[in-house]
Amino acid sequence: MDVALIVQKFGGTSVADLDRIRAVAGHVKKEVDAGNQVAVVVSAMAGVTDRMVEIAGEVNATDNAREYDTVVAVGEQATAGLLSMVLQEDGIAARSWQGWQIPIRTNATHGRARIENIETDALMRSLDGNEVAVVTGFQGLGPDNRVTTLGRGGSDTTAVALAAALSAKRCDIFTDVDGVYTSDPRIVTKARKLDKITYEEMLEMASLGAKVLQTRCVEMAMKHGVRLRVLSSFADQPGTLVVDEEEIVEQELVSGIAYSRDEAKITLVRVADRPGVAAAIFGPLAESDINVDMIVQNISADGQATDLTFTVTKGDLERAVAVVKEKRGELGYDDLDWDADVVKVSVIGVGMRSHAGVALAMFRALAEKGINIQVISTSEIKVSVLIAEEYTELALRALHTAYGLDAD
Amino acid sequence: MDVALIVQKFGGTSVADLDRIRAVAGHVKKEVDAGNQVAVVVSAMAGVTDRMVEIAGEVNATDNAREYDTVVAVGEQATAGLLSMVLQEDGIAARSWQGWQIPIRTNATHGRARIENIETDALMRSLDGNEVAVVTGFQGLGPDNRVTTLGRGGSDTTAVALAAALSAKRCDIFTDVDGVYTSDPRIVTKARKLDKITYEEMLEMASLGAKVLQTRCVEMAMKHGVRLRVLSSFADQPGTLVVDEEEIVEQELVSGIAYSRDEAKITLVRVADRPGVAAAIFGPLAESDINVDMIVQNISADGQATDLTFTVTKGDLERAVAVVKEKRGELGYDDLDWDADVVKVSVIGVGMRSHAGVALAMFRALAEKGINIQVISTSEIKVSVLIAEEYTELALRALHTAYGLDAD
Repeated sequence: MDVALIVQKFGGTSVADLDRIRAVAGHVKKEVDAGNQVAVVVSAMAGVTDRMVEIAGEVNATDNAREYDTVVAVGEQATAGLLSMVLQEDGIAARSWQGWQIPIRTNATHGRARIENIETDALMRSLDGNEVAVVTGFQGLGPDNRVTTLGRGGSDTTAVALAAALSAKRCDIFTDVDGVYTSDPRIVTKARKLDKITYEEMLEMASLGAKVLQTRCVEMAMKHGVRLRVLSSFADQPGTLVVDEEEIVEQELVSGIAYSRDEAKITLVRVADRPGVAAAIFGPLAESDINVDMIVQNISADGQATDLTFTVTKGDLERAVAVVKEKRGELGYDDLDWDADVVKVSVIGVGMRSHAGVALAMFRALAEKGINIQVISTSEIKVSVLIAEEYTELALRALHTAYGLDAD
Repeated sequence: MDVALIVQKFGGTSVADLDRIRAVAGHVKKEVDAGNQVAVVVSAMAGVTDRMVEIAGEVNATDNAREYDTVVAVGEQATAGLLSMVLQEDGIAARSWQGWQIPIRTNATHGRARIENIETDALMRSLDGNEVAVVTGFQGLGPDNRVTTLGRGGSDTTAVALAAALSAKRCDIFTDVDGVYTSDPRIVTKARKLDKITYEEMLEMASLGAKVLQTRCVEMAMKHGVRLRVLSSFADQPGTLVVDEEEIVEQELVSGIAYSRDEAKITLVRVADRPGVAAAIFGPLAESDINVDMIVQNISADGQATDLTFTVTKGDLERAVAVVKEKRGELGYDDLDWDADVVKVSVIGVGMRSHAGVALAMFRALAEKGINIQVISTSEIKVSVLIAEEYTELALRALHTAYGLDAD
């Protein structure tokens, strides 16, 4: 039997209390019993980091990023120690590793540091000595010898980076859902769990608010070819594998239907149809740090003026409108409309690259239900439409059925 | 004006929440405004470490000391970060230092490690750059690059060790009492706060349950000549200075009346009066890890047998009795008595070295109140008596008055 190295990652709800930490030890034991080396990445017990963030948030320090990181990093340290103790209780040799002990070296951007390098020598010696390595997620050691944190979803990133550095056979992300679904199961009751999905598809899913994995962690896994698995801490199910396209033999045309409610639409009515107008609009928005997502410009009937529509996040709508209003003189549009009651629905699948009919099927399915499409945008593996928010559920179910994704 | 380096230490109740941490920043600011360099040692916010200890205590790990330390050390880290942020908010340059960052090197005895060395270079650079150094108490870095903790009262020890390493002018221990008193103010309402006390006296006070400072921290201060000050976080009072005898010009005969309820008495009635009998009794007790405090052997009337009385802590009484019973054959005593309803009352003062009358005054004061003395023991700066516990308050007040300690 070949010894394989497996990285496992457990999030905050999976380690919320001692009982759950004991359940986590069971998942670790299973890999150890199978003869594998195991590195476990843990988050803070649910609530601990939140409490620290809350207290630290009440202080108006001028240059507090380093101290903030020092404060919020304590949660993972406690979990790592506790899980090691619980593993020892179960007769499994284990030790905790804080980011600075390995060390996991990051850049100096406190609060959202990027991992630059993981020194694996000490860790490998411990693993080769049949010790389970329990590693604090979310944190590393900055160039100034201070503790840094990686920001949201940081523990997932730690796990993938560690799996890459250790050339792990697999990186298992244990969470409170049992895998990646063809659509949101709370809305589409016939949604099916996917056995496999490609990195690219997962990225589109993640960026569209299917919050199973953070975009950053999927990107890193794709870049380093880390086989990711998403599975539940609470159910004994194989979960969903996130892998290279080549690993998926029978690729479905469409893998899933995702959506994002965090969209708002702005339309400039009859803006001058001349070179440079797009730059005149989107330059100031970029300077104000406002991300623009979908952009559609209608063909102008008279060659003089055109309607231009784009979307921003709901949180940026007010500021975006203010920026566009300020530039009215320069842009010379007739009217300005905006609407926050919209949703972006996307059909995702690497298979659609070679199939022209995917978009058409989408438009037909929506038309049949009387749903008006406001904006369309497409990428290689995705077709997205903006529709009125009230149609969200209807559209998701209709598309799920139309692409043959419904469970039996 | 000379720049002085001051170490300040704040315990768990002094940093219990953000409001109190802000009050602590006020104490730091006062020293900074006076032109001093300040290193602050902080404990965990009251309750945080206790919660960690509780959770960790529920796990029966076999070799858990290292992990236990990892878990319980998180509290100070959070406090250090928060206090640094609050100082910055007040416009004071500050940074937190964890034990491993300085590093504060300890031996490998996890859970009750001893500080072996403090590398002060990085710390001094920061202090010389006019930064307040906020240091995590209670913890250091072991020889295996793991976090160690120092055990009970560890933050006081950190503060004194740091003051010694930095050759600080003074080490201020901020606590929830405003100094050292001539006796327990809860019992002796006329007790006075002492302006100064010697290390030796403080040691006797500490070992007798006046829990203002841990014995270990006073010993270290005495050894390195660190001027200690005990004062309240909550009141603006000068507190009590703990210093060398030479610094106290007008030494009172007696500085204080201390007591300890944690005593139990065992008497072997008519034990053989021959060489080796003491060893036969106290050898087995020592082997069972039972500390014996006072020992009294009566003069035997007939030269054949004697009564032997000694005291142990209340917690050890049961085990001590069992050990002595087991050895009955060997020791050959007639009867065995024990009594846990006793208290040790002590009169403490370096001045008594040269004054024979101190003990006599004690016996007279107790006799006047009809209090029977069961055991007497004396040291250079202390006379202790064991009496029935019910007389504790009466005895303390009588002695406090007899030695002229009462406040006006």
